[in-house]
Amino acid sequence: MSKSPEEEHPQKALGWAARDNSGTLSPFHFSRRENGDDDVTIKILYCGVCHSDLHTVRNDWGFTRYPVVPGHEIVGVATKVGNNVTKFKAGGRVGVGVMVGSCKTCECCQQDLENYCPRVIFTYNSHNPDGTINYGGYSDMIVVDQRYVVRFPDNLPMDAGAPLLCAGITVYSPMKYYGMTEAGKHLGVAGLGGLGHVAVKIGKAFGLKVTVISSSPSKESEAINRLGADSFLVSSDPSKMKSAIGTMDYIIDTVSAVHPLLPLLTLLKVNGKLVTVGLPNKPLELPIFPLVLGRKLVGGSDVGGMKETQEMLDFCAKHNISADIELIRIDDINTAMERLAKSDVRYRFVIDVANSLSQ
Amino acid sequence: MSKSPEEEHPQKALGWAARDNSGTLSPFHFSRRENGDDDVTIKILYCGVCHSDLHTVRNDWGFTRYPVVPGHEIVGVATKVGNNVTKFKAGGRVGVGVMVGSCKTCECCQQDLENYCPRVIFTYNSHNPDGTINYGGYSDMIVVDQRYVVRFPDNLPMDAGAPLLCAGITVYSPMKYYGMTEAGKHLGVAGLGGLGHVAVKIGKAFGLKVTVISSSPSKESEAINRLGADSFLVSSDPSKMKSAIGTMDYIIDTVSAVHPLLPLLTLLKVNGKLVTVGLPNKPLELPIFPLVLGRKLVGGSDVGGMKETQEMLDFCAKHNISADIELIRIDDINTAMERLAKSDVRYRFVIDVANSLSQ
Repeated sequence: MSKSPEEEHPQKALGWAARDNSGTLSPFHFSRRENGDDDVTIKILYCGVCHSDLHTVRNDWGFTRYPVVPGHEIVGVATKVGNNVTKFKAGGRVGVGVMVGSCKTCECCQQDLENYCPRVIFTYNSHNPDGTINYGGYSDMIVVDQRYVVRFPDNLPMDAGAPLLCAGITVYSPMKYYGMTEAGKHLGVAGLGGLGHVAVKIGKAFGLKVTVISSSPSKESEAINRLGADSFLVSSDPSKMKSAIGTMDYIIDTVSAVHPLLPLLTLLKVNGKLVTVGLPNKPLELPIFPLVLGRKLVGGSDVGGMKETQEMLDFCAKHNISADIELIRIDDINTAMERLAKSDVRYRFVIDVANSLSQ
Repeated sequence: MSKSPEEEHPQKALGWAARDNSGTLSPFHFSRRENGDDDVTIKILYCGVCHSDLHTVRNDWGFTRYPVVPGHEIVGVATKVGNNVTKFKAGGRVGVGVMVGSCKTCECCQQDLENYCPRVIFTYNSHNPDGTINYGGYSDMIVVDQRYVVRFPDNLPMDAGAPLLCAGITVYSPMKYYGMTEAGKHLGVAGLGGLGHVAVKIGKAFGLKVTVISSSPSKESEAINRLGADSFLVSSDPSKMKSAIGTMDYIIDTVSAVHPLLPLLTLLKVNGKLVTVGLPNKPLELPIFPLVLGRKLVGGSDVGGMKETQEMLDFCAKHNISADIELIRIDDINTAMERLAKSDVRYRFVIDVANSLSQ
């Protein structure tokens, strides 16, 4: 007979969980495993609110197991480390992103691409090796294998830096992999949300010219004045889109809704690269003529491996990059989710876990 | 008032042209320009019959200007060279592919990517700089700027080597550009026609494991025994397709008809690359989940620049690669076109121009 979430493991934990596809979150008592030889126990201080959290609590993708405690942009302090742990000490600033386990032996794991391991264990809504379901960062503490923990740089703010653990690596990794970092080249960032606004900052740090492509004309001023974009293109303005044809080297497409690729492909020069990091739930239309006649590519990318996540955090620390956030109490999470569903956030909610979650 | 094709230029020429979208070809008297300082005049010996020729004579793409003399896989002998011509001498074996001009000054031209120049002049159905329409290789002679002429290696058969000038470069160039040449990796070749059968041979020459993916089970034996493929996958057999999931590093997709990309994407490993060189006239459905979750890409590519075309010919000469052809007389071209429309050719028709075209 299976045990209750509160009795599965020896360490008591408190979080907020959704119980059904209404997505409404409320306090939830559960438990964490004892700290093993390779583990780091972390007191969670901050946790970002990713759009995936919203999809999951509402079961938009159809594979949510309730109760679900979301959260995979976790920053905190190590409180205990196992005997084999060399990279971390109790008291150190640490982060946990979208995964907490993988097979460690496959080709992907051997290449530091744990994120593409077929047996990757995501931070929540996944099976632990013992068969129990795991719970994410909307909670007071977590126990994680050291391989999936990163050092959180001293000069990064812990609250505004938290979203880098998902949003940051999601845009940084494809820029590196697809070769979209050559200074002076022109990057388009389609969609100005949690991912897009970090992509603007990282693109500028690589020395790129950055243009935001957005359907919301109202975001022009903040894109340029607050985030540092060089220009702004309203995707619904045919004449402006036409004048930008063939001007971009790369595009990071962060739009999750189903949308046409043709307008974006036409913005690219010959050899242009369009990388999508959103996950529309239906196929997009891919016109082949512009792809062939301009030697363009459409690629995908999904977060990044642990080594690259550390590299990205260090890069952001060096360039003083963090997310623009709205810090909330855990009690405000349901309102925040509703606002997130309407894209009413500049640009990421982060939960002040330690100061608002209590027994 | 515009002159007749026969009177536009000083040199008389004879070819076969289609006059309307029936696509029926018949003898056609026209003219070529005088050999200029940078030009090479070529006596045409052989010309391959590309699927594009068929599309053009039937106006499938909607931009055919009649009368049209098709043909862009041209092999012959230089008969005259201009004062500035250093690379070629009268009597030398030469080839001409899909283009005969470009601006020579844009970024593409400067990078030896004349094929992507916005002002590229294709070998037929394009405007010459003087405004006249140009005519292709189903004809007795042609005058071409030396930049768009290649040396035809001595040990390559002139008839079976002709298709390399389009089919060969079309599959060679993306393999180089997208990094699909690492010995020991696994290449899938989707579609076994004029392009596909050359892709198999070039893939083997790079040291790849090559699997042909085809809807025609009848081609299995020839794919393996005649062309040297390592294995054969029937795309309409769900159990065989399932057993091949996640086994390929690269796929060259030569299929021109509208077809689903999902089955091909699932054959790819993480980091897999699918490059399409066919030109379906409607958008394909692009499922985003496999692209993102497996960091896969879909790219396009269109023939190759002149420098790379020469490199490809030299590579094929070194590895004894030519096309498998059916040599025909020009009088048989209409029958050949009908057979080509039904994919009834193993694997390329080549016209024996010099021995069958006469005044």
